[in-house]
Amino acid sequence: MIKHELVEKLLSSNHRAVARSISIVESDPAQATDLLKKIFQKVGNAYRIGITGPPGAGKSTITNQLTKHFRKQNKKVGIVAVDPTSPFTGGALLGDRVRMNEIGMDEGVFIRSMATRGSLGGLSKRAIDAADVLDAAGFDLIIFETVGVGQSELDIAEAADTTVVVLVPESGDAVQAMKAGLMEIADFIVMNKSDRPGSKQAITSLQTILMMRDHDEKSWMMNIIGSIASENEGIEDIAKEIERHQRFLTENNLIIKNRERRLRKRIKDIVENKIKEELWNDESENYLTSSLEKVVLGNLSPYHIAEEIISNFKN
Amino acid sequence: MIKHELVEKLLSSNHRAVARSISIVESDPAQATDLLKKIFQKVGNAYRIGITGPPGAGKSTITNQLTKHFRKQNKKVGIVAVDPTSPFTGGALLGDRVRMNEIGMDEGVFIRSMATRGSLGGLSKRAIDAADVLDAAGFDLIIFETVGVGQSELDIAEAADTTVVVLVPESGDAVQAMKAGLMEIADFIVMNKSDRPGSKQAITSLQTILMMRDHDEKSWMMNIIGSIASENEGIEDIAKEIERHQRFLTENNLIIKNRERRLRKRIKDIVENKIKEELWNDESENYLTSSLEKVVLGNLSPYHIAEEIISNFKN
Repeated sequence: MIKHELVEKLLSSNHRAVARSISIVESDPAQATDLLKKIFQKVGNAYRIGITGPPGAGKSTITNQLTKHFRKQNKKVGIVAVDPTSPFTGGALLGDRVRMNEIGMDEGVFIRSMATRGSLGGLSKRAIDAADVLDAAGFDLIIFETVGVGQSELDIAEAADTTVVVLVPESGDAVQAMKAGLMEIADFIVMNKSDRPGSKQAITSLQTILMMRDHDEKSWMMNIIGSIASENEGIEDIAKEIERHQRFLTENNLIIKNRERRLRKRIKDIVENKIKEELWNDESENYLTSSLEKVVLGNLSPYHIAEEIISNFKN
Repeated sequence: MIKHELVEKLLSSNHRAVARSISIVESDPAQATDLLKKIFQKVGNAYRIGITGPPGAGKSTITNQLTKHFRKQNKKVGIVAVDPTSPFTGGALLGDRVRMNEIGMDEGVFIRSMATRGSLGGLSKRAIDAADVLDAAGFDLIIFETVGVGQSELDIAEAADTTVVVLVPESGDAVQAMKAGLMEIADFIVMNKSDRPGSKQAITSLQTILMMRDHDEKSWMMNIIGSIASENEGIEDIAKEIERHQRFLTENNLIIKNRERRLRKRIKDIVENKIKEELWNDESENYLTSSLEKVVLGNLSPYHIAEEIISNFKN
């Protein structure tokens, strides 16, 4: 059971309570459920921004610069950075330490990195739960920063009100992004490092790709914003485009509608994860172990074993 | 119900029956289960090779050249290529057409591309089921070719007896591969385009990364093989390294043991997918729809709704 004191401190934006709560979300599913039930009424005020793109596009730099920009407007910023770190490196969060020096000492900023492997539960569930913690703690803006590869990462980027896809003018980058499904989740695109050669051609080919897309009935016009994040160029344009998208969503009553759509997916994930937990116990694991050899020898199909396990689960 | 005739033709390696069977696996879960139950006793003779790595590393070229090499040894080769194509491009399989000209007219080769989105069922399930179809049809070698990003792609690469990770000497490529979890699934590494500048440094940094890893008790020594696949250089070395790994597995009784481990995961996936199918029906979907607004308004937590749905499912 989550202590009342932790909830109180979390809701009053105490950083240690926020950190403790996110650790619970990451490591203890039962406690996490209890915590999230207790804070749910305080969730829903933060605006959520997803920043995604291929490795090396400058997502972290943009996140840092945007955070500084929002801090000047006195907005509190929570960052959930999803780092595809393999377990055998010990999940080195070097990026975090670099950031901590820059923006992490600011009381109005909270940064949390999550590894993609080696923790309990689904990655996107943990990241979205962490955002709920930050939301309840009173952060005005929550930024999900994630590499745009793989389904979990897409799920996280999609869990934002506004999703920004960051690309660089490398040849083929736009095509790769399209293939990886990034264009479908983008609300606008940032062409970072736009002082590099090939930037104009990259923007042209992006525009071609965007023209191929079906147009949204609500007629949101997707822009491409140039930036050189390392020199703080274009950051204000990115912030303005986020605000323009937020206004568009508000004027078309889409904020609630979109959140309901995402919530549907999230509840389904919660249900499926809970069932999995109940399904795999000592009994079913032992049955599985004892059946494997028969399957390898060709005496039973994996589908027969699966049916048997399901039938046992139901009875 | 799958017709006896299709099964007969499939088992006699008829290409149209193979194509039809893989289409069933991709599009019709109930029929797929029936088919796979009927062919299971014929599955298990093929040796499976995973070829993975970042986009642009030359995986397709290596797959094609390796296929030509194996064909000279009179081995039949089935290829399952997983292409992260987004649905709105219509899943353009240009790569396939290019290949078809080169190796696809050969009766001893079968190539199938799979899109990562827009089909029923999990991607890795479909790819592994397709490999079973090819295995039953008498292909001696099955190559999974997949971009090394995201969990599904890792799952597919891991479903092979021997997994080859292809890198190019770009700065940071090795580090990215490590972060993406590729090093953990590699049985050996190919440094393709090894005539490029920086190749030696890239190999040195790879060796450093490999030294950081825990050593396997069975003492498999992971090699780094240089290649220039576009000029057919190093292909024979890659084939020899695959054979060396196969011998290592055989001598240490690891082929069956590894297949059992993978089978355990696969059966779990089958069970979980089947339960999901049963879980989400009109009734549960409608209940979910009617509850969403309450959650958005903060009157109910997603966890309450989830518990209600689970309790309904069980009763």
